[in-house]
This record gives sequence, structure tokens and C-alpha cells, in this order.
Amino acid sequence: MERLKSYVQNSWVDGKGEARPLYNPATEEVVAESSTEGIDFAGALDYARSTGGPLLRAMSFAQRGEMLRAMAKIIHSGRDELIALAIANGGNTRGDAKFDIDGASATLAAYAELGREIGDIKVLKDGDSIQVGRTARYQGQHITVPRRGVAVHINAFNFPAWGLAEKAAAALLAGMPVISKPATATAVVAHHMMRLFVDQGILPDGALSFIAGGAGDLLSHLDGQDVLAFTGSGDTAQTLRSLDSVIARSVHINVEADSLNAAVLGPDVEPGSETEGLFLRDVVLDMTQKAGQKCTAIRRVFVPESRMSAVVDALRDRLDGILVGNPADKSVAMGPVATSSQLRDVRQGIAMLSGETEGIFGGSGEIEPVGVAAGKGYFVGPVLRLCPDPAAARVVNDREVFGPVATLAPYSGDPEDAASLVRKGQGGLVASVYSDDRHYLGAIVPAIAAHHGRLYLGSAKMAAQSMGPGTVLATLVHGGPGRAGGGEELGGRRGMALYQQRTAVQGDKSLLKALFD
Amino acid sequence: MERLKSYVQNSWVDGKGEARPLYNPATEEVVAESSTEGIDFAGALDYARSTGGPLLRAMSFAQRGEMLRAMAKIIHSGRDELIALAIANGGNTRGDAKFDIDGASATLAAYAELGREIGDIKVLKDGDSIQVGRTARYQGQHITVPRRGVAVHINAFNFPAWGLAEKAAAALLAGMPVISKPATATAVVAHHMMRLFVDQGILPDGALSFIAGGAGDLLSHLDGQDVLAFTGSGDTAQTLRSLDSVIARSVHINVEADSLNAAVLGPDVEPGSETEGLFLRDVVLDMTQKAGQKCTAIRRVFVPESRMSAVVDALRDRLDGILVGNPADKSVAMGPVATSSQLRDVRQGIAMLSGETEGIFGGSGEIEPVGVAAGKGYFVGPVLRLCPDPAAARVVNDREVFGPVATLAPYSGDPEDAASLVRKGQGGLVASVYSDDRHYLGAIVPAIAAHHGRLYLGSAKMAAQSMGPGTVLATLVHGGPGRAGGGEELGGRRGMALYQQRTAVQGDKSLLKALFD
Repeated sequence: MERLKSYVQNSWVDGKGEARPLYNPATEEVVAESSTEGIDFAGALDYARSTGGPLLRAMSFAQRGEMLRAMAKIIHSGRDELIALAIANGGNTRGDAKFDIDGASATLAAYAELGREIGDIKVLKDGDSIQVGRTARYQGQHITVPRRGVAVHINAFNFPAWGLAEKAAAALLAGMPVISKPATATAVVAHHMMRLFVDQGILPDGALSFIAGGAGDLLSHLDGQDVLAFTGSGDTAQTLRSLDSVIARSVHINVEADSLNAAVLGPDVEPGSETEGLFLRDVVLDMTQKAGQKCTAIRRVFVPESRMSAVVDALRDRLDGILVGNPADKSVAMGPVATSSQLRDVRQGIAMLSGETEGIFGGSGEIEPVGVAAGKGYFVGPVLRLCPDPAAARVVNDREVFGPVATLAPYSGDPEDAASLVRKGQGGLVASVYSDDRHYLGAIVPAIAAHHGRLYLGSAKMAAQSMGPGTVLATLVHGGPGRAGGGEELGGRRGMALYQQRTAVQGDKSLLKALFD
Repeated sequence: MERLKSYVQNSWVDGKGEARPLYNPATEEVVAESSTEGIDFAGALDYARSTGGPLLRAMSFAQRGEMLRAMAKIIHSGRDELIALAIANGGNTRGDAKFDIDGASATLAAYAELGREIGDIKVLKDGDSIQVGRTARYQGQHITVPRRGVAVHINAFNFPAWGLAEKAAAALLAGMPVISKPATATAVVAHHMMRLFVDQGILPDGALSFIAGGAGDLLSHLDGQDVLAFTGSGDTAQTLRSLDSVIARSVHINVEADSLNAAVLGPDVEPGSETEGLFLRDVVLDMTQKAGQKCTAIRRVFVPESRMSAVVDALRDRLDGILVGNPADKSVAMGPVATSSQLRDVRQGIAMLSGETEGIFGGSGEIEPVGVAAGKGYFVGPVLRLCPDPAAARVVNDREVFGPVATLAPYSGDPEDAASLVRKGQGGLVASVYSDDRHYLGAIVPAIAAHHGRLYLGSAKMAAQSMGPGTVLATLVHGGPGRAGGGEELGGRRGMALYQQRTAVQGDKSLLKALFD
């Protein structure tokens, strides 16, 4: 059995003591184990700060971009092995695994391209210079420079490849060394990726470290030049935000947490239309891709009252065709959730939902999966519920059930009514609105934009090339206010802001030109 | 005696119970009193959110800019009354008072001008649209929109006028209603400003509320669309960051806290040169203006070893000419610190410093102020200390003594040595470097930029028009990492980011054009 190691201070290290098993969530077989006990986390931080930081800061954006391009290529060349590991350790179907792994290499490639565009410079100017004295001789110029600490990345279990890559891409291009910690339960894919990077020798010493398990006392050593970026549950986010080190030293923290992402069907969308087809496809995709374990997946679906029964019929039809089982079986369209505790959590969520919703499809998720021994695996089938009174609902708007579960709810067809229901999610990563009516969209967009990091406007014109609201793009920001954690990642250059300090430099005009042009 | 009232839910309200006295810090006479006991803070937030927010969002940037321009004009027209109140309640000299009050109107005017420039629109585009599909038909456009909550501003005692104005300017222009809370001890000036705004009827209902004292349970009611912006001590910042409401609901918080701002004299600066003159002037100005109670004031002064004795002599000479006393007396150049607790704090700081520094000027701050009865007033004289070993010093680099106190320390003349000493402050608002040597500046700037929100490069070419590193400008960012709180304010448009949500909108190209162009 493979024992996952951590990569710190430029070498692979194993933790002491008893190891924690990692499972195949379809079969409950142990696929690997890991321990980080006794690892010198303070030393890991110091090494990254003192070795990785200076090496990265000595590189230009173009050079750091080249490094990211090499990482993207290595992932692509190891794609088949990574897919196999994602199926075995993540409960991923082949499609799920590709989504994660190709997402990782695409994001690295996008940031590589950004590095190439920025070019052979080390200091970014932020805006034009500004006259700050009586004459043009005295000016101010905003610049951004890499923070001189470490970026600690704590990733979620659902995207071991993409999670590592998307956070690392922005931090490394910005010039900060990274210590990346995947969720232990599904760390096999990230561990193998790290192994590929190290074996190919493409990273400067100390630029990227990897922790294959618990982070020990790592976070207690963070200081004001460090960054902590987290994707995961709101509860863990609160724990991280409350850390003494974070609070006392103003550690820059970015959180991407829970989100009850809404989809809204416009009243103009005709049955059988391309826009309706996109809406139905996106809802089913988000319910079933990765067994619904996407932070961006649609959880609440608002449909004009008059259209509800037709939508219910259409979704039932489509969900009925989803074969659930062991993703090692190629006919399977949806695998298990990732861990036994996720399964408990999803079941509890469905039970809570049933207090204020009616079953539409899948009951409470009991299913007989194909390709596994009876009683084995962390399986839950697609579950669609209907909430007759979403304005009064509490669980529907409050509880993110992180599995193949969504809730339909009626609204009047009025955009203000829809917006008010969407906002009950108290801040989300993405909301999607399906309509070809500009008047309707013009009303709903400003009414929900402040509550979301991203809005997806589904229409006939883009339906043929849309990947759905659940797909995060390197060029658009990812994150959301309130319940979603208040963070922001990606969005091209915007994603580097977390890792760089903006500094206003004021002085003589010709001096500023000499320093920064 | 005036009893300060709070302005909430569109009316002036008085707190119940015993009032807290506000003093003249030069004479210890009571000049006003205030109480906020029993004020309905939850109601104040709701009113601002439900009335002020929609009214502000219905206005364009140009209209909100006009509102700010009216505020600036009102402050200017009430300047003489405000100056008198600042002298009586703030211990300000007339010059100190003008600095605060003119800073307030100038910042409002700068944001008014920004509103005019942005023009008659309500939604800001952030960058160009980006192709997100296979063809140009499918695009993403980042926009920014006002957060739909309240901006709660907690201001410091040292700048009652500027503090209120600079935070309110950015929030109101961004489209968010504000609840502003000055430090109680020096609230008289802010209270009068608020009175002028209300009497002139220039603000939409609920756009600006005012709390003349303690904030009660206000902060426990904040949620994910609200903003909390704080200027003050690092200890209070930690308390605010630890609030359950802030942590659980991802309230956007901005902190501007302690800062051991450094000044560095370059080895190239000749005795008697214009650059040396600027350096000496800036150090003395920052020590004495507002009795050293500026968050941006120079606290640590690094001087090449070979130049130290000449610098010591020159600073002694200049400090010797500073007359300290009751600022109601026009010959007085420096008044008292603002409160008895500040006096205690400054005295304690000086005592701690003396363990690792030698006295150069002013001993431990004992002074006989002019124009006050014996033993009255919160006076401390200018104190200059010398630290022979700044690399080993703890208090010098750790303890912000918030009064007319600075410490000189020698360095080798090497820019890397200077940078390493500057960085021992663990993050600051501003650092100033005095040099006409581009090679020296080119080495030190990248070595300290990440630790500061602003760098001031003092040189012969800008000396004649410089206001010193201690002056915050509306067009340049203000804030700093680490000990300084990790926040960012002002900087023109950049200052609105705290109050707006950035949202990526993806959809059909022509739709996005119709919505946002």
C-alpha cells in the first residue's frame, strides 16, 4: 500500500506514528495511507520564506509563467495515471476525473499565458502615475509587489487536482512560495501531481511544498506577510478566521465556503426552447457531476409557478437515466460521495430538507449502486425536492447539502420576487438566470449581483458553447460574499491581488520613471 | 454644557442614563457630554439598509459626487467654528485643526471629482469583456456594484473630521450608507460636522448616521453585505476581528492599526543640502504636529552612522524651538495629547523605550506647558531617543508610542541593512527614504515595498512641494500589512473596492453590451 509523503524543505518526508487510511469510496477498500505527525512545520514555512521566496522574486512574470506552463504540461502528460487515481480515491467517474484534472492544467496554462503577456518584468504598475504636488514634478505611482511570506493553501476534498493548481497558479505567478495541503481523504491525486512536479525538477527550491495530511501547528506560525487561502466548509472557515495568529498578525486570508447557488428560470423561456434545454441540462449536470460535490453546483431552482409541473416532469425524465455505481464501471454516470462522513452529512441534510419540501425524485437518496458489493460504498442517489413556500423556508435557503441534491421552488415570474428568493441564500458563489428577455435580465442582474461573485446568464445564443454555471474559469473571479466566505480568487490578474502588496510610491517624477518604467 | 446627540433613523436622539464627559485636554475642563445608552442600534442598521441603501443606489456616481461636493463645501463654510472646537476638545493647535478639517473637505472634494469623472452611471465595469466560450459570442464582463448593507465606520480620536470624511467619501460614492462612530473623547468636531450636514439637508434619508459615543450592540447585528472599517489600536482591531458576527458572516472588515513608520536617510545626502533639510523638517513635523498623534508619523529614524552626530545636533536645535502649551494661545506650536489615558500610554511607552535607548532630547517628556494652570492638561514634550543597536531592539521596533516621540538609530549606509531594520516594524503604513541616489533607491524600494502601503521618496526635486510622509492623500492608498492591520483605504477608485462587490457576469456578448454599455 502506498504511504503518502509530504514534500517540505526540498525533500519528501514521512510522518511518524500511526497512519490514516485513505479509501476508495465506492468499495471502501483502503488505497493509501498518510501521516504528518512530527513534521517540522515551522521549518517548512521558514524554508519556503527564505529560499522559495527570493528565488521566485528573482524571476520575472514571464519566467514564472514558463514554470506554470511546464506544470500544466506535466499534468497533461500524467493525465491517464491521474484519472485512474481519481476514480480509485475520489469516487470520480472518468468524466468527473477529467473535469478536475483538465481544470488543473487549463488553469495553470491560463496563468502561464498571463505571465507571458505581462512579460519580462518583476514589478507591476497599478494604474497611471498621479500628480500629488503643486506641479507635475511630484507624482505618486501605485505598484504591486509579491508579499514576502508563504501562501498556505488548504484545499477541499472535491477537487484535489484543480484545487491545488488554481491556488498555486495565482500565487506562484504573483511571486509567492506555496505550501499546499489537500484534504487528506482524497489526497492521492494531489500527491501524485506533486510527485510529477518534483520528479521533473521544474520548480525552484522551496517554491512549492506539499502536506499529505493534517497541518499540525503550521497555521500558528503564520505572520503578516503570509497568506492563508482556504476552500471548504463554513465551519472550518470560522475556525481558521479565529486563529490567534491570523487575528493578531493580520494574516491575509481568503475563504471560499458554503453556497446555496440558485438557478432561476425566466418566465419568457418557452417549453422545448434551446434556453429551456440549457436550463434542464445545467440542473442535471450540477446535480450529478462529481455526485453534486461542486461548491458551484445549483442547489436551489426557482421556476415560474405556471411552468413548474412541466419542469418537474422533464427533470424526472432526465434524472431517471442516471446510472449510479462504481465509477470503475464505464457505464456508470455518477459515483459515490467522497467519504463516509460526507455521506452522513448529505443524508442528514436530506432529512432536514424533507421537513419543508416534498419528494420529486429519488426519495431520500437510497439507491442500489451497480458494480459494488452489497452495502459497500458511500452512495446516495440524485434527490430532487420541491419547496412550496421558499420565502418561508429555512433549511432550503440555509443548508448546503453537498451531494446530488437540489430543491425546486416556485415563484411568481416577477424578477424582483426571484431576486428576493435568490438573496435568501445570504451570499453565493454563482447564480444562474435562464432567459432571453433583456428587460427581465436588466431587472434581476442588479438585484442579485451584490450577493454573488459570478452571474451566469443562460440564453439561446450561448447555449451551444456553455459549460454551465458550475464550471469555474481562470479568467473570471471565483468566490462570493457572506455565506460563501467573502473571498475572491482567479479572474486573471485579479487573482494575484491576494498574493501581492499594493504600495503607493510618491516622489520626483523622473525618479519614479527610472524605477518603474 | 452641550450634550452630544446621535443621528439615527433620520433623527437626533439622546442616550439615556449618565453621560460621559468630554474634556479640553489642555485645561481638563469638561466641554461636552454624551450617552448612547438605550439607542436602538439594530433599528439604526435596518433603517440605513432599507432606506439609505436604495436611495443611494438610485443615484449615479455623478449625483453621489455632487452630494460629496456639498459636504466638502459645508465643512469649508463651517471651518472657523470647527477649528475652535478642535482646539477646545482635541488639544489641537490652529495648524493641527486646519490639517484635520481641511483634510476632511479636500478628501470629500477629491471623491466628488471622481464621481464627476465616472459620470452618470450606476454600474462600473471592471476591465474589458473576456471571451469565455469557443467563439466571441460568449463573453464574461466583470462589474462592481454597491454592497447592499451598511458601512460601519469606527474612527480614531486623532482625526475626528478627516476620519469621518475620508471613510464616508469612499463609501457614499460607492453607493453604501454609512454609520459613523467617532472616538467619544474627541467627538465634538465630528458631531458639529454632522450637525452641519443634517441642517443643510444635503443627504438622502439614511445615507449617513452618527453615533456620539459607545456603539452598544451595533456590531453584533452586522451581516455579510455590511462593511466594518476601523482605524485605531491593534488591540481593538483584534477584538473587532474576533467578533462572532464578523467571523460567522464574513463581514468585510478593513483595519488600519499600529505602525512604527520608519524614515531612512541615504548616505548620499550632504549636510546642508535641500534633501537633508526636508528630512529634518519632516521628522520634526511628524514628532510635533498633532503632538505626534498621527498614525503615519515617523517613529523610527535610521541614519548612517557617520552622519548621526550631525543629525542629532540639528534635530535638537529644531526641537528646542517648539513651544508646548495650551493651543488656545497662538504662540503655542504643540498642544497636549488628547486624553489622560493617552498620556498614561505615552509615558509608559517612553519608560519602556528608555530600557534600550538613550535620551537625546526631552528626557522622558516632562514639560511645563504655557497657558495652563499648574498640573493641568495631558502634556508631554517632544522626546527624541537614540537606539544604538536597532537590530537587537524590541521595544523600538514593536511599540508604537502614540505621541511626540521618535527614536534615532544608526545603520551602515547600506540599503539592504536599512531595509532589514525597516522591516523589523512588521508592516507599516508608510516609510520614507531621503536620497537623491537612484541606485540606492532602486535597491531599497523593492526591499521594503511589501511591508508598506505607501513609500515616500524624499529628494531635492520634490522638497519644495512636499507635505511630508505623514500626510495621507485621497489619490494614494492608505493602509499597510501586518502590524498596520492589513487594510487599504483611499487611492481614488481603489478605495471604493471595500464597499462594492466585484461580480463576473457571463453570457451572450450582445446581451452584456446591452446591460452594461
